[in-house]
Amino acid sequence: MGVAVTAEVVHARSCKGTPPVGAAASVMVWDGAGQGYSCQPVGTTTANGGTTPAAPVAIAMPSLPHPLLDADEFRRQGRLVVDFIADYYARIDEYPVRPAVAPGFLARQLPETAPARPEPDALAAALRDVRDLILPGVTHWQSPRHFAHFAATASNVGALGEALAAGLNINPFTWAASPAATELEVVVTDWLGKALHLPESLLFSGGGGGTLLGTSCEAMLCTIVAARDRKLAEVGEERMGDLVVYCSDQTHFSFQKAARIAGIRRGNCREIPTSMEAGFTLSPKALAAAVRADEAAGRVPLFLCATVGTTPTAAVDPVRELCAAVAGRGVWVHVDAAYAGAASVCPELRHAVAGVERVDSFSTNPHKWLLANMDCCALWVRRPAALTAALGTDHDVILKDPSAQAAQEGGAVVDYKDWQVALSRRFRALKLWLVLRCHGVEGLRGLVRAHVRMAAAFEAMVRTDARFEVPVPRQFALVCFRLRAAAVLVVGEKRARDGDDEVVTAGNELNRRLLEAVNATGRVYMSSAVVGGTYILRCAIGNSLTEERHVREAWSVVQEQATAILAAARRPTARTNRRTVRRAHAAL
Amino acid sequence: MGVAVTAEVVHARSCKGTPPVGAAASVMVWDGAGQGYSCQPVGTTTANGGTTPAAPVAIAMPSLPHPLLDADEFRRQGRLVVDFIADYYARIDEYPVRPAVAPGFLARQLPETAPARPEPDALAAALRDVRDLILPGVTHWQSPRHFAHFAATASNVGALGEALAAGLNINPFTWAASPAATELEVVVTDWLGKALHLPESLLFSGGGGGTLLGTSCEAMLCTIVAARDRKLAEVGEERMGDLVVYCSDQTHFSFQKAARIAGIRRGNCREIPTSMEAGFTLSPKALAAAVRADEAAGRVPLFLCATVGTTPTAAVDPVRELCAAVAGRGVWVHVDAAYAGAASVCPELRHAVAGVERVDSFSTNPHKWLLANMDCCALWVRRPAALTAALGTDHDVILKDPSAQAAQEGGAVVDYKDWQVALSRRFRALKLWLVLRCHGVEGLRGLVRAHVRMAAAFEAMVRTDARFEVPVPRQFALVCFRLRAAAVLVVGEKRARDGDDEVVTAGNELNRRLLEAVNATGRVYMSSAVVGGTYILRCAIGNSLTEERHVREAWSVVQEQATAILAAARRPTARTNRRTVRRAHAAL
Repeated sequence: MGVAVTAEVVHARSCKGTPPVGAAASVMVWDGAGQGYSCQPVGTTTANGGTTPAAPVAIAMPSLPHPLLDADEFRRQGRLVVDFIADYYARIDEYPVRPAVAPGFLARQLPETAPARPEPDALAAALRDVRDLILPGVTHWQSPRHFAHFAATASNVGALGEALAAGLNINPFTWAASPAATELEVVVTDWLGKALHLPESLLFSGGGGGTLLGTSCEAMLCTIVAARDRKLAEVGEERMGDLVVYCSDQTHFSFQKAARIAGIRRGNCREIPTSMEAGFTLSPKALAAAVRADEAAGRVPLFLCATVGTTPTAAVDPVRELCAAVAGRGVWVHVDAAYAGAASVCPELRHAVAGVERVDSFSTNPHKWLLANMDCCALWVRRPAALTAALGTDHDVILKDPSAQAAQEGGAVVDYKDWQVALSRRFRALKLWLVLRCHGVEGLRGLVRAHVRMAAAFEAMVRTDARFEVPVPRQFALVCFRLRAAAVLVVGEKRARDGDDEVVTAGNELNRRLLEAVNATGRVYMSSAVVGGTYILRCAIGNSLTEERHVREAWSVVQEQATAILAAARRPTARTNRRTVRRAHAAL
Repeated sequence: MGVAVTAEVVHARSCKGTPPVGAAASVMVWDGAGQGYSCQPVGTTTANGGTTPAAPVAIAMPSLPHPLLDADEFRRQGRLVVDFIADYYARIDEYPVRPAVAPGFLARQLPETAPARPEPDALAAALRDVRDLILPGVTHWQSPRHFAHFAATASNVGALGEALAAGLNINPFTWAASPAATELEVVVTDWLGKALHLPESLLFSGGGGGTLLGTSCEAMLCTIVAARDRKLAEVGEERMGDLVVYCSDQTHFSFQKAARIAGIRRGNCREIPTSMEAGFTLSPKALAAAVRADEAAGRVPLFLCATVGTTPTAAVDPVRELCAAVAGRGVWVHVDAAYAGAASVCPELRHAVAGVERVDSFSTNPHKWLLANMDCCALWVRRPAALTAALGTDHDVILKDPSAQAAQEGGAVVDYKDWQVALSRRFRALKLWLVLRCHGVEGLRGLVRAHVRMAAAFEAMVRTDARFEVPVPRQFALVCFRLRAAAVLVVGEKRARDGDDEVVTAGNELNRRLLEAVNATGRVYMSSAVVGGTYILRCAIGNSLTEERHVREAWSVVQEQATAILAAARRPTARTNRRTVRRAHAAL
């Protein structure tokens, strides 16, 4: 016996209690006029300890409002978006790299609530707003004139790999949740590790293994937590407050943030000082001394973050010597090679990863310099079990798949949810695999070499202008440079000397003004850092659209602005007096 | 004076030391034949305390290997990918939802290293491999027959929003790093919050504010760390080991994982038991008792994670009463509404967020049920300052932009890097804004209502078959159901009774086999949970392509498999004896 239940069954509720065997099954049905519920039989049950399956029930179900995921419409809308992006690439060089906008400029132009209903052809209308309202207000990271940050080197296939992953929209948190996606990640992290000349010990093929996360900070956090839990299992949970982590004063701030998130005390992060003389690299001796001091004080050394390619100057910490300095002390050594790890794809730049044979983990960001659009951080660990012991979870039956359980328990498959913070994850392997397929290892080498050569050429141009100096040697494709304070300044009535405090201060101020002037042109975007008390300008070359002419123009802009600033500095101002630093450019 | 530096300048290194004022600038130049470096002058400097700008230098720079980011090529390749995705949507219903593959199936078919050079038309070749090798091995999350997990409800504009963000490839970690992207995130989180009937206190317009993260676990981690640091500032860092967090035995395991990552002791997570009778909701009384017990023992209650729509049964914790239960005790209350938060877009389902006026934070995943493809978790906090105090960083000059610094320091702009774990972030706001523009709030309501109605219809169909029961009331679009053990089993010679241990065990085993049989058909994919010792099947409706016929077929598959299993159970097996549970379906 069946019963018709109308679409109003949205409000259906079961009648109280479970019908006993032999009784009629029933359901609360909302009457169409909205007057109330009634309990209606919707099936019968025979007695005698058994049941009869009910006859099919006629239930009218609603359809979805309108096509949400539709092949034909996707084809039409997809072309709009592809053309929009292509037009953007064609036009990107015309935008000022950074927008000249004031806080609130966009918020003021948008309504305060989402529309109740879409306007006709809403996607086309929205894309017009992206073009007219949003693009004029973004910083154009793909601009060939963006030299400020380590690049987010994009590519056609990097973007399309993200698009494809978004289109498939799968969630490969366990092997069973999407076997091919998990296996592709295993394959592609081994591929990339081999291409970067990483040691076997970090690859699946050598007992380690890799995963694709979002960012370096996530990689740091996951490895700190793995190290922490391994250590606490050894020394006892009550020693949490005694754990100490180590880095240099050049290490990216994400490391201290990750350590704090993991519960390491604020006072227990040793930021070991570096020096201009040592190229801002972390000293193994200083590290060893810090570790010994902590041990002597009864604290527990836990984790070292070495950097290959620091953010301020792309300095390369001596990984082999650092490993030796802490050997036998149970310190987890992680190498953050977010930017410069990519360089080791070139045999001649392989020194970047020298000594990583003994590290516990290593991460680099293919979204930075390897054409994999945001986001993609590759993390390799020597002992995956340490990671999964800390981040693994085992009590959710919903994720257990009987057919895969045997394999999972036997360790034959990887469940990447146990390698990271989150459960859900995107299919990042697809993008990286497409990049490697479509460019090949030689293509990546060509990319890195082209950028390194452009940077070397920029460096050579800086060195031809004696007003400027290159305070630290160029590393990879980052050139650090500045106006020579001593050459362009006169302090009081005396010739300026490099070491004078006043010269340092005035030189830094001068270079700060130079950067501001350079960036204000909109023709180029560079950044700065303060290292060892010295303010430097950073020109990081690494965009896919950057050509020779952009690098030349960048240098012309710097020269022009320097000339203007130095000329202006010669004009007396109200603030000029004999006791202050007088800026003068003697020989213009 | 200029000097030609060849492309071999890749190996150029600066000559030792900085040329003194008046000396020639010089650079190490690699000779083309690879024999070595020589120090060559590349500019001259006049004496007398000044410098002459050098003449332009002729430096030949290399070009990038081949177009990496190219408008025309993007148009061509973009169409390939758009058509590929469209074809996938058109064909998706033909795939078995879950692949029948064994571990290693894909790894075995791929080479061990990345190609050195791309093959001709590599993208087209790679897409053929996606079709022939990868798609047959993925779980099709967008299949209309995927009812296992809370859906990753995709849409055309959700996917294309990801594609567009990947194409622009910007990194809006601070306001200055991309003003429009930051402002759009501020606008769109307020839009969504209003659409979901969240209280003003959680919106920017009311002094709170929202952000878009990747996942719920990240939202939990960030808020636990914010609560932890606020509490430790009050009670002292040495009390770290005394901090206690609270949840129910139905809370997603991500919460305990997040708490562990944040350094909360494993033993200090109170998983408060729930019951079938109370619909698996967290009892305010039990919570208050647990908090009081911890306080009495000298521990420090820190954080409560309440859930709106638990993973096993979509239970809704009584948020208002839970807030009241811990009021005045300094416990941070977070609501994880990863799945069911979306439902509150409908006024008639607004009860889902009842009581959130007093919570400290609230998160939901638009990538789950609001058409924003993976990944997108919206987190709102009542006091953004608590978040930024814990996760903010302030010592990186590279991120400081003089022109924006004044605004940043004045608090006029949001720097989202200080609201999350990582520095880098994708432009997720673009996707969510496109979804809201192109579907409108009414479109989202239609989506939620259609799925809820389909689920109600499925529930009604289950209730018409007296072999089955619905052990907990349907919530939203999740139907939990099972074969009634007592109705279909005979234990020994006696009629089975619901409470008997043997019946519980045998009933669970029977339902486990039912799920396995249902999923083995490939025509539908459902999941299970064990709640209060009872094994239940879960049918979660929420895919964009799911239509009436898929829901009907899902139910038919379940009925067919149940009939087959019960018939098989009637046949005597070697294991059957009077002492074991004999399974029999009496009335088939």
